[in-house]
Amino acid sequence: MVDGLKPRPLSGFLLLGILVPIALWFILRPFLDPVPSVPALYTSSGFSILAFVTTLYLVPALGPRFVQANLKGRDLLKTYSTPIPESQGLVCASVYLLSLILFIPFAFSNVFADRFSNQQKSVHGLAIDEFPHHQLSVYLSSIISLMMATLLGFLDDVFDIRWRHKLPVPIIASIPLLIVYFAERGNTNVVVPKPLRPLIGSLINLGYLYMSLLSTFSTNSVNILAGINGSEVLQAITITISVIVNDLLYLPWPIDWRIPLHLLGNQSEIGSEIRIGGVWSAGMAHGSRVLVERHLFSLYFMLPLLGVCTGFLYHNWYPARAFPGDTLCYLTGMAFAVVGIQAHFSKTLLLFFLPQILNFLLSCPQLSGMAPCPRHRLPRFDPETNLLHPSTVAFERPPSMRTSSTLHLLSLLGLTRRTKHPKSGQIFEATNQTILNLFLITLGPMTEKQLVKVLGATQVAGSVFAFLIRYGLAGLVYDGDGR
Amino acid sequence: MVDGLKPRPLSGFLLLGILVPIALWFILRPFLDPVPSVPALYTSSGFSILAFVTTLYLVPALGPRFVQANLKGRDLLKTYSTPIPESQGLVCASVYLLSLILFIPFAFSNVFADRFSNQQKSVHGLAIDEFPHHQLSVYLSSIISLMMATLLGFLDDVFDIRWRHKLPVPIIASIPLLIVYFAERGNTNVVVPKPLRPLIGSLINLGYLYMSLLSTFSTNSVNILAGINGSEVLQAITITISVIVNDLLYLPWPIDWRIPLHLLGNQSEIGSEIRIGGVWSAGMAHGSRVLVERHLFSLYFMLPLLGVCTGFLYHNWYPARAFPGDTLCYLTGMAFAVVGIQAHFSKTLLLFFLPQILNFLLSCPQLSGMAPCPRHRLPRFDPETNLLHPSTVAFERPPSMRTSSTLHLLSLLGLTRRTKHPKSGQIFEATNQTILNLFLITLGPMTEKQLVKVLGATQVAGSVFAFLIRYGLAGLVYDGDGR
Repeated sequence: MVDGLKPRPLSGFLLLGILVPIALWFILRPFLDPVPSVPALYTSSGFSILAFVTTLYLVPALGPRFVQANLKGRDLLKTYSTPIPESQGLVCASVYLLSLILFIPFAFSNVFADRFSNQQKSVHGLAIDEFPHHQLSVYLSSIISLMMATLLGFLDDVFDIRWRHKLPVPIIASIPLLIVYFAERGNTNVVVPKPLRPLIGSLINLGYLYMSLLSTFSTNSVNILAGINGSEVLQAITITISVIVNDLLYLPWPIDWRIPLHLLGNQSEIGSEIRIGGVWSAGMAHGSRVLVERHLFSLYFMLPLLGVCTGFLYHNWYPARAFPGDTLCYLTGMAFAVVGIQAHFSKTLLLFFLPQILNFLLSCPQLSGMAPCPRHRLPRFDPETNLLHPSTVAFERPPSMRTSSTLHLLSLLGLTRRTKHPKSGQIFEATNQTILNLFLITLGPMTEKQLVKVLGATQVAGSVFAFLIRYGLAGLVYDGDGR
Repeated sequence: MVDGLKPRPLSGFLLLGILVPIALWFILRPFLDPVPSVPALYTSSGFSILAFVTTLYLVPALGPRFVQANLKGRDLLKTYSTPIPESQGLVCASVYLLSLILFIPFAFSNVFADRFSNQQKSVHGLAIDEFPHHQLSVYLSSIISLMMATLLGFLDDVFDIRWRHKLPVPIIASIPLLIVYFAERGNTNVVVPKPLRPLIGSLINLGYLYMSLLSTFSTNSVNILAGINGSEVLQAITITISVIVNDLLYLPWPIDWRIPLHLLGNQSEIGSEIRIGGVWSAGMAHGSRVLVERHLFSLYFMLPLLGVCTGFLYHNWYPARAFPGDTLCYLTGMAFAVVGIQAHFSKTLLLFFLPQILNFLLSCPQLSGMAPCPRHRLPRFDPETNLLHPSTVAFERPPSMRTSSTLHLLSLLGLTRRTKHPKSGQIFEATNQTILNLFLITLGPMTEKQLVKVLGATQVAGSVFAFLIRYGLAGLVYDGDGR
């Protein structure tokens, strides 16, 4: 088993010989004629591939330094106790932040515009000289928030901040975001679902409260759905890909896309307008430059995130050679909050968090202190069979009436399993209420590798469902363009 | 002696009862009539006082957590070996960055301008509605650089990066600064001293190279002049105060300032124009709004830095209860680079680094590998007398001719002391070439507390000398307004 803990092999030829040239082509493409309609997107893709390769190499290379600096942990669901480098999300964060910073001149300077104006101006299509330079401060404030999340996540790893103390940490990290929003007098109004409108009016300024809660949720919800190899990164990657797919729907594509929404029985104006061709009007943006810009902004943050997370997953996959630490959860959570807030699609974003929302709701009895909550709620490992079983927590005192009835209800729904005292009928043990335990209760014991695959499949299913709701059913709840 | 290691007492009344109300008054003052001519400066001063109080409280409060997280060190120049919390510059950095971020809406939003326009417009004087909002991205990129310096400094403390590897670290941290500079097409031209102009033309674009070297220098030069209690912070504070005094010369003051430059024999136009009164034209800015804005920008970074450094010095003063770690050196060094670059007075700034330049020049033989360089070059402590003596380094091999003659020259100048083998006449030992050892060679052995005072006095003398050169003699080397 210890044999499996050597760093995973990396194919130098595949990475340096194929991926790096592809990345360089993407970065250089905007400088070649004809200039593409969204040149900075090519650069961003190139940087993301480089970020992927860099993370792939740096994580195993820096592993021993992490162990040396006492940033290490034992894998709790294994037979061996070899120390595994912990907090290596820091490597991802550093690569990610650096690629975001190096990207600035491509997105916010005239580097492409100068070239562009030398040519004849394209008749249609978005070019970089139309990119809003004033958004630079928004971009920078997002980087500050991400950097703060990284710093705080790493501090959490080093100082081991207590659970309850670190809940509000993402709020601190979102301060730069909110303050620049305020300084720029941003539109923090949120569209209210139709049924509620008569109650609170068509628009309400939930604003800052909503935005800081969003970052708290997106950070902590991934953090509490952890415990098995690859779980945090897999969630992050699925959500990132979902956001990217959603962004791509709004981009000006040279070819005409048609999404068969009518199959879903949706005959609203969205379905019909999608057919209109041309670079500017294609996609879901319906010719709105603002929408295109927002989703480009989102892509610039999501593509490199996908790069570093995928690179990290290679080493974090079962059996893990590297642990992400809280740093990665803070980073990814804040990145999702940033794009949700700055690109104005926070409700769509929340739809991609369905498994996390379910896990959070399941965890409520334990998180609220109603039921006892151990430090780790990860499944129980049986070294004999190599299988994971639902983990349980013992009640030191007999549970209150309220707790008993809650557990009874959860148990009826098949969401938890409790053990009653044979004589008194009192509950003295119950499974930890997490989605991972729920999988084990429903599907029976399985290996860690199977469990993480089930989690990944659930996340993907959740995202597919989210897209169906967003583009199939949104017309029922919101106006056509409700985000 | 261990008795002296309890945290230093804090007077709750003085801090909470007097300083906090004063700080709040400063923050609220711009909202009271009449609106002052530079309202954001009041807010910045208020935040700086709060930063001072917060640092004073947080450093001892968080000390045990640092020791627990293995961020601790033994004081090498003491008889006791009690672990002292290390890297507490992180506390300073966090407080500093947070106060910079919270300050954003005051400097860059319309919060004051709205109030101001409700009144009758003041006839003269700078008001916040004249503050350049476009500078927000410059301010934000500076925060990113500072945050990166903090992160890298802390990583250095945690991972203990090797000396030669960390030299270029400040260059990485200055990337955001340079990139936004580039994206905004900033003027990176540097005024060349008169005698060199025929050679390289009146202006030369040293630009990016110069700026990254500036951050490298300002960071590492403080870092290598370290080793005794309070030395790093004392240097940082003196330089900060010098920059602040220099900034204040350029502000619009309600009263007319006259600096008796004629006493120095300088009869240039600077000396005479200073008399012109009025809010806008007073000071060294000569009515230039750009100059006023730049020096305000500098003040907004320097005032809170003074706050956190002074608060930290209280606990870092001999005998130290807290160590700054590399984090503080990186933070302060980058802060100086930021204001020097963004407010365009890098040459004046370098003048405030005279003791550091001297120390760097002295260290060259050892840093370049010409002479052997031990890990710590701090003075030697004699526990019997409690005095510090010059520390020495032994030559494992006989020094080369070049080294011998260099050491001979330094020795003749009284800058080092070497020990020759009685028979062969070969040097087998020499004092470490630092300014601290130089003080001990020149002034004789003294206590650590005396030595740090000598260092502080030297730094102050250096700054006074710098002001004399800058405003007394600059006319000889540069044009009247050479910065």
